[in-house]
Amino acid sequence: MTANITVLAGDYIGPEIMAAGLKVLAAVSEDQNFDYELHEMPFGGAGIDQTGEPLPAETLKTAQQSDAVLLAAIGGPKWDGASKTPEQGLLAIRKALNLFANIRPTEISTAMQQYSPLKNTEPVDFVIVRELTSGIYFGTPRETTADYALDTMRYTNEEIERITRVAFDMAMKRRKHVTLVDKANVLDTSKLWRKIVAEIATDYPEVTYDTSYVDAASMKIIASPSQFDVILTENLFGDILSDEAAQTTGSLGTIPSMSRGVNGPSLYEPIHGSAPDIAGKGIADPISMIRSVAMMLTHSFNRDDMAKEISDAINQTVTAGVVTPDLGGHATTDEMTETIINYIKESR
Amino acid sequence: MTANITVLAGDYIGPEIMAAGLKVLAAVSEDQNFDYELHEMPFGGAGIDQTGEPLPAETLKTAQQSDAVLLAAIGGPKWDGASKTPEQGLLAIRKALNLFANIRPTEISTAMQQYSPLKNTEPVDFVIVRELTSGIYFGTPRETTADYALDTMRYTNEEIERITRVAFDMAMKRRKHVTLVDKANVLDTSKLWRKIVAEIATDYPEVTYDTSYVDAASMKIIASPSQFDVILTENLFGDILSDEAAQTTGSLGTIPSMSRGVNGPSLYEPIHGSAPDIAGKGIADPISMIRSVAMMLTHSFNRDDMAKEISDAINQTVTAGVVTPDLGGHATTDEMTETIINYIKESR
Ligand SMILES: CC(C)[C@H](C(=O)O)[C@@H](O)C(=O)O
Ligand SMILES: CC(C)[C@H](C(=O)O)[C@@H](O)C(=O)O
Repeated sequence: MTANITVLAGDYIGPEIMAAGLKVLAAVSEDQNFDYELHEMPFGGAGIDQTGEPLPAETLKTAQQSDAVLLAAIGGPKWDGASKTPEQGLLAIRKALNLFANIRPTEISTAMQQYSPLKNTEPVDFVIVRELTSGIYFGTPRETTADYALDTMRYTNEEIERITRVAFDMAMKRRKHVTLVDKANVLDTSKLWRKIVAEIATDYPEVTYDTSYVDAASMKIIASPSQFDVILTENLFGDILSDEAAQTTGSLGTIPSMSRGVNGPSLYEPIHGSAPDIAGKGIADPISMIRSVAMMLTHSFNRDDMAKEISDAINQTVTAGVVTPDLGGHATTDEMTETIINYIKESR
Repeated sequence: MTANITVLAGDYIGPEIMAAGLKVLAAVSEDQNFDYELHEMPFGGAGIDQTGEPLPAETLKTAQQSDAVLLAAIGGPKWDGASKTPEQGLLAIRKALNLFANIRPTEISTAMQQYSPLKNTEPVDFVIVRELTSGIYFGTPRETTADYALDTMRYTNEEIERITRVAFDMAMKRRKHVTLVDKANVLDTSKLWRKIVAEIATDYPEVTYDTSYVDAASMKIIASPSQFDVILTENLFGDILSDEAAQTTGSLGTIPSMSRGVNGPSLYEPIHGSAPDIAGKGIADPISMIRSVAMMLTHSFNRDDMAKEISDAINQTVTAGVVTPDLGGHATTDEMTETIINYIKESR
C-alpha cells in the first residue's frame, strides 16, 4: 500500500522548510517498507498567484483523496489587504476537511530550557486541544453595516462533545488530567461547554478534570505551566493560548501541530507562520516541519518507530549545537537538515 | 469641596486591602486641604449576602452620586454556581456607570525585575486600554437551546471611536505609540476596528500607530514587551492579554487599574481577584489597592502631588524589603501599610 501525501508548501519560508521535511521523510523511509507518493499542490498565497484562489479546487480534491496532508506555512505582506487572502485558504481547508481537532504540544525539556524566556526551570509538557472548525471563526450571522459590525460565537452540543472526547482520549495516554479553558462567568457558549464537558468527563473516571477561566489560564501558562497536561478549549481561546504557550518555549521554530478530522486525512503543520523577514536566506529552522512529518508518521501511518528515529536525530543535532539562528546557532536550514539525516543513517 | 468616594470592599481579602488603602488615604490627606467622605456599600458577594443582589440599588445610586468609586475585590467559592454571582455585579456596575475605558498599566522596573517570571531584563512600561462595556460581554442576541448556544460580539462605530480617542490621548502623554490588537484576519468586528482606528489615527499625526493580531500579541507580551506603549483592544482580548501582561510582572498584588466613563465617576480597583486562599490571614499584598487610591487621587481629584507621595513611599517600603509573602517577604498587610504610612509622614 502506498501512502498518498498532499504537500502544500505555501509561501515565503514555506517551500524552504517543506524541502527539509521531505528530505528527512525520504531518508527515514529508506528500507522501511514505507512507500509513499507526494502530491505537491498550490495553496495559500501560492494558490492565489497560480490560480486566483487560496484553496484551488484541485488542491482540495487532491487533499481529500490523500491519506495525510503536510502544510508548511502561508501568508505574508504580498497579499495583505487583498480581496482574497492566504488565510481564507487555511480556514477553508480546515472546514472542508472537517479538521475539528487541532493538537499543539508545548514542551520545555531540560535541554531546551535555555531557549525559554521564562525563568521557570521545571519541565513543561502539555498539549492544547483546540476546537478548529466552529466558534466565532465560522459562526453566523456575521454582519457589517454603516453603524456596527457583529460576529457570532456559536457551538452545538455535538461539536463540543467530539472535541471533548479527543481531549480525554489523549489524556488517557498521558498524565490523565484535562483542564477546560473557558469564560463561563460571562459567555453562554462557555456555560454550554462546562455542562457538556462535565457530562463526558464521567465516562473517564481515571481522568482528573478541572476548569479555568481563559484570563486566569493566560497567567498560569506563564506562572505554573507544569500544572497542565491536556488543555481543552474552543477555537478563539485556543488560538491565543497556543501561541502564548509556544512562545514560552522560546523556540517557535521547533513546534509541530496536527489537525484531525472525522474520517478523512489529518493535516500536519508547523505552528509558526511564513516568516517573510527571513525568507530566501536559507536560515529558517526546519525542526517544526520535520517534527510535523514525524507526527504524521505516528498518527496517520502508525509508524512510531520512524517518528522516534527522527525525534532522536533532532535531539542529537540540537545537542551538537548544529542549530539555526533562532536557536542561537549559525547553521543553515540545509546544514541542520543534513545533520539530522546523518544521525538517522548513523543509527541504523 | 468634599470629595465623595464610594467604597466597595467586596469579598475575601477585599475588606483587608480596602482597609489598608483607606488608612493610606487618611494619612496622605492630612493637612493637604483634601476633604473627603467615604460611603461604604455592599457589593459583589457581600451584596448578595446582605441584600440578595450583587449590585444593590442603593449601592448603585450612591456610586452614581459620588465623585469616584474604590473597589477592592469580589467573588469566591461561596457563590460559585449560584443563580446570582458577584461577577454579575461587576458587569452591571460597569454598564450602569458606563465605564467604557479600562486602563491597566504593566510595568517591570529594574527594582521589580526580580519578581518577573521572565528572563527579559529590559524595563517594560506599557498600558492596556481595554474597551469594557461592549463586545461579546454584552452583545445580543445570546441564546442557549437544547442543541446549541451562541454569544454575539458586537461593536458600533461610536463605541470604537470613543475608546480609540482615550488610547491616543494617553499615548500623547507617553511615548506616542499605539498598537491596536485585533483578529482582523478572521472577525468582522475586528475589521471595523481597523477601519475606524486608522481614521482616528490621522487626527494624531505625532502618534505612531500599528496593529497586531491577538495571537501574535500574546507572544510579543512575553518575547518583546518593551515594544509596547499603549495597547488598544476590545473587551475579551483585553481581558486575556491584561491578565497575561500582569503575570509577566510577577507581582499581580501590586497592580491597580482605572475604569472611566463619559461624565460620571471613575472606578479604581486592583487587577487581581479576591484570593480566597489567603483571606483572613492578614498577609494580602496591599500595594495594588494603595496604588488604586493613588490613581484615584491623580485622575479623579487632580492631586498628582499626593499620588506621588504614596508612590514614593511604596518604593521605599519595597526597597526596604518590608513586603508580603507574594513578594518573597514576611510582612503582614498591616506592617506593610504602616511602613508606607511612616515613609509618607517622614517625608513631610
Ligand atoms: C492565520 C489564522 C487565521 C490562524 C487562526 O487564527 O486560526 C492562525 O493564527 C492559526 O492559529 O493557525
Ligand atoms: C470577573 C470577570 C467577569 C472580569 C472580566 O472578565 O472582565 C475580570 O476577569 C476582569 O478582568 O475584571
